[in-house]
Amino acid sequence: MEKDLIKRVRKTVPLVHNITNYVTVNDVANILLACGGSPIMADDAGEAAEITSICGGLNINIGTLNSRTIESMLLAGKKAKELEHITVLDPVGAGASKLRTETAMRLLEEVGFSVIRGNVSELKTLWGKEGKTKGVDADIADSVTEENLDEMVQFAKKLSKKTGAVIAMTGAIDVVAHENKAYAIRNGNPLMSKITGTGCMLSGVVAAYCVANPENLLDATAAAVAAMGLSGEIALERLKKTELGGTSSYRTYIIDAMSNMTDEILEEGMKIEAR
Amino acid sequence: MEKDLIKRVRKTVPLVHNITNYVTVNDVANILLACGGSPIMADDAGEAAEITSICGGLNINIGTLNSRTIESMLLAGKKAKELEHITVLDPVGAGASKLRTETAMRLLEEVGFSVIRGNVSELKTLWGKEGKTKGVDADIADSVTEENLDEMVQFAKKLSKKTGAVIAMTGAIDVVAHENKAYAIRNGNPLMSKITGTGCMLSGVVAAYCVANPENLLDATAAAVAAMGLSGEIALERLKKTELGGTSSYRTYIIDAMSNMTDEILEEGMKIEAR
Amino acid sequence: MEKDLIKRVRKTVPLVHNITNYVTVNDVANILLACGGSPIMADDAGEAAEITSICGGLNINIGTLNSRTIESMLLAGKKAKELEHITVLDPVGAGASKLRTETAMRLLEEVGFSVIRGNVSELKTLWGKEGKTKGVDADIADSVTEENLDEMVQFAKKLSKKTGAVIAMTGAIDVVAHENKAYAIRNGNPLMSKITGTGCMLSGVVAAYCVANPENLLDATAAAVAAMGLSGEIALERLKKTELGGTSSYRTYIIDAMSNMTDEILEEGMKIEAR
Repeated sequence: MEKDLIKRVRKTVPLVHNITNYVTVNDVANILLACGGSPIMADDAGEAAEITSICGGLNINIGTLNSRTIESMLLAGKKAKELEHITVLDPVGAGASKLRTETAMRLLEEVGFSVIRGNVSELKTLWGKEGKTKGVDADIADSVTEENLDEMVQFAKKLSKKTGAVIAMTGAIDVVAHENKAYAIRNGNPLMSKITGTGCMLSGVVAAYCVANPENLLDATAAAVAAMGLSGEIALERLKKTELGGTSSYRTYIIDAMSNMTDEILEEGMKIEAR
Repeated sequence: MEKDLIKRVRKTVPLVHNITNYVTVNDVANILLACGGSPIMADDAGEAAEITSICGGLNINIGTLNSRTIESMLLAGKKAKELEHITVLDPVGAGASKLRTETAMRLLEEVGFSVIRGNVSELKTLWGKEGKTKGVDADIADSVTEENLDEMVQFAKKLSKKTGAVIAMTGAIDVVAHENKAYAIRNGNPLMSKITGTGCMLSGVVAAYCVANPENLLDATAAAVAAMGLSGEIALERLKKTELGGTSSYRTYIIDAMSNMTDEILEEGMKIEAR
Repeated sequence: MEKDLIKRVRKTVPLVHNITNYVTVNDVANILLACGGSPIMADDAGEAAEITSICGGLNINIGTLNSRTIESMLLAGKKAKELEHITVLDPVGAGASKLRTETAMRLLEEVGFSVIRGNVSELKTLWGKEGKTKGVDADIADSVTEENLDEMVQFAKKLSKKTGAVIAMTGAIDVVAHENKAYAIRNGNPLMSKITGTGCMLSGVVAAYCVANPENLLDATAAAVAAMGLSGEIALERLKKTELGGTSSYRTYIIDAMSNMTDEILEEGMKIEAR
């Protein structure tokens, strides 16, 4: 893994344009600031491309999409591509409705992305297989386990080759792949699924890390995935010491941990393995 | 009160589709996860009915509604009815504007609901009486007190008979009624009105509890109302021990308490009386 | 500085209509409640003017604007003016896109405001100078420093005379000006820029303070600005004692501090100077 990835984020404060859902938009903005970036949100066709052009990266998240914002996603996405900006796709709920599946496919085709981050169900949908999307969460039959890890790594590599993107497949074990190289990451814990937005937040962090480290998108993405999982671990240790603590404190602690994250903390805590 | 209501929620993880306002949408998602459910938000007409069909319940909240989302509410509502799903209406601000009043009335007529949760002003508006809605909060003249409790119970029963829904009328004292049966619930405290979204969050919890306990919607709704109030009480005790604590810590503590709620805690703490 | 400004807010509970961005809308609602006001959000043209008419003030924030909400801003703004309500403009990102700049200018012209709160870049854009807006944050070259303070005070006074509004220019040092009178305020700290929404929240507080103190908008605005900065200072002291604390705890602590703010705390802690 490359060195000083996080230092470069904190030093350059990458500006990331987010077209994202209104459920977790505040969390995405706050974790972007926490990880060292700077967020801007703009989802109207009247300004989407212009806002993208002043940023270094674009993070498109299709949760709570609508016809107005789909147009903005396409306009901003094409402008970002033209300017060779970092582009991240978070295909929230692809497979759960035709509108989301078709929009994700259209974005893949008409824009193309530097990184795609999703759960197994969503990524299977992008591949064209039937994903078993249960709402916005991956179906249990669709999770990454020690038993199917090899198969999942192969699938992520194939999807990367097909789309040209770094693939970040997140779940109990995370897989990050670019063409023939891949990492399995074992940070994080199940309580993270009991707060909304950990996936959306991670996609924002991926965008910031990649903008600051454009020479090595695979490592930048893997570092973001590990940093998010490690933040979840640090937060859980803190939560255990909090009398009467619960999931909302946990959410606060995760963002806190990300705001304190350094290359040194990450290097010591990350559980990453080349596959 | 029926037993094991909460156990059934945590065991079945009911998926609830929410078409709700953008002010408190994140809180609604997080409390749904905290109480044992699973949230999905989708408010575009292009996917609203389809998303509803993969869920067990639908929670419609008319705060910050607009013409685009009203259409989605109607489409999702009709699909949910057709599939005999649990449907919850939160008529936020009914009486504060013609648009909200008319939309609430239209939803009542064209959809029909399993449960309606609102403050006295909003429910009076649904009845056709002039409610004294002061913005999104009930007017003081419209609160439930020991003095007018009998009258309020009667009103809730009448509104239940008229609409066919379980009525959850929340305020200083909460009244939950279905036809000729009713409960008065005395959990909660006034500080809960100093954070936004306690009502919206409760409606989400009501939906999850009812989806998991479809045989007894009156008890499921009453349990949700009591669990929310009790979470407010537990949070207040914790807040008193927090140096420099204020309303934002209080919000966190309420969701924390809901995430730790069990049938045992509820049974011990709830102050409920059949009327 | 006038006395008892905050007491009047807590006593009268001013109802403020907010048409604001979906990134920080929840924070704005919560800080309005924390500071003693009452928030209502409504952004559809079908109810915007009607909702405004039941309120005492209107807070327009142009972050994440779109064609639908721009229309609502104009309708509500004109109604508020007609009723001589307090009107606050927060020109988030003016200068960052044509749509935002033009909308801000149009609102200035067609509505007019009691108070305008923004960073230097945004306010320069309103003046017609090229602001150096870097996304939604002021460019470093555009910050208020001890060196350029005199010049900035003069600029704020000129902008006040041109627009008729009290100007609240926020940054490292805050300047609040009305025609020939001005204050420089040195509360707050740089960590406040590491959470999203401190500016948006302040605009909400300004609206509440002004509605409750209509006789002296300059002092009411200055008190709101100082109260926000002081909340940031109190929160930072608390954060330093929080093991593993970070930016998300800091956000919580700021709103907590505002919920505990009194005239006495403000008078003791504010660092204000007439210029």
